[in-house]
Amino acid sequence: MTAPTPRLPGQVERHAAIVDLAPGMRREYFRLHEHVWPEVTAALTQYGITNYTIFVIDDTLIAYYEYVGTDHAADLAAIDQDPVTQRWLSLTGPCQRPFGRADAATDGWRDAREIWHLA
Amino acid sequence: MTAPTPRLPGQVERHAAIVDLAPGMRREYFRLHEHVWPEVTAALTQYGITNYTIFVIDDTLIAYYEYVGTDHAADLAAIDQDPVTQRWLSLTGPCQRPFGRADAATDGWRDAREIWHLA
Repeated sequence: MTAPTPRLPGQVERHAAIVDLAPGMRREYFRLHEHVWPEVTAALTQYGITNYTIFVIDDTLIAYYEYVGTDHAADLAAIDQDPVTQRWLSLTGPCQRPFGRADAATDGWRDAREIWHLA
Repeated sequence: MTAPTPRLPGQVERHAAIVDLAPGMRREYFRLHEHVWPEVTAALTQYGITNYTIFVIDDTLIAYYEYVGTDHAADLAAIDQDPVTQRWLSLTGPCQRPFGRADAATDGWRDAREIWHLA
């Protein structure tokens, strides 16, 4: 696996993302998240993801996490290459469908953009 | 104003909420958040709201914050009674419309429910 990017003390990026639950898959998504595989959480932690929470409202999922590395895209790509994470995503992926615009370029989580922060 | 509720060391509640931008009000909402009034942020801080971020995707706003008091509803009610906050909300309210279901019981932010967390 790729080595995690360096971490700069005190540097935190805040991220939010959103996705809809696929019809009929709500129960399966929740069941999976009762026991997220330890290899999956270990990969997240290794690559700088912390304080990660998933919320639900209606049939929409909201994710918030903080990233403490120096290259978010590179570390996310490394997580996606983790073999156990790939198996995990093969189970969670079918539970999801894109939020909002039908022409969204992704079939999964879409990143939101930060507009304001209060420490 | 009501006194803030007590704080228990190390106790944090994570909250996410969602609301849509009203048609034509996107620019006004962003303009307001370039300089959120200091009295508004002071009230949030006083009543235990911390690490508060607002994100946007398409015409949907996502809020995430952490709450360090002991009675979230009571502290939110106290914030809503702050006179300057009420003036602020009279400006931001018309920028928003409920997310999702038309029968939503609120005309503003709707709370999401936490389903998973990784520290």
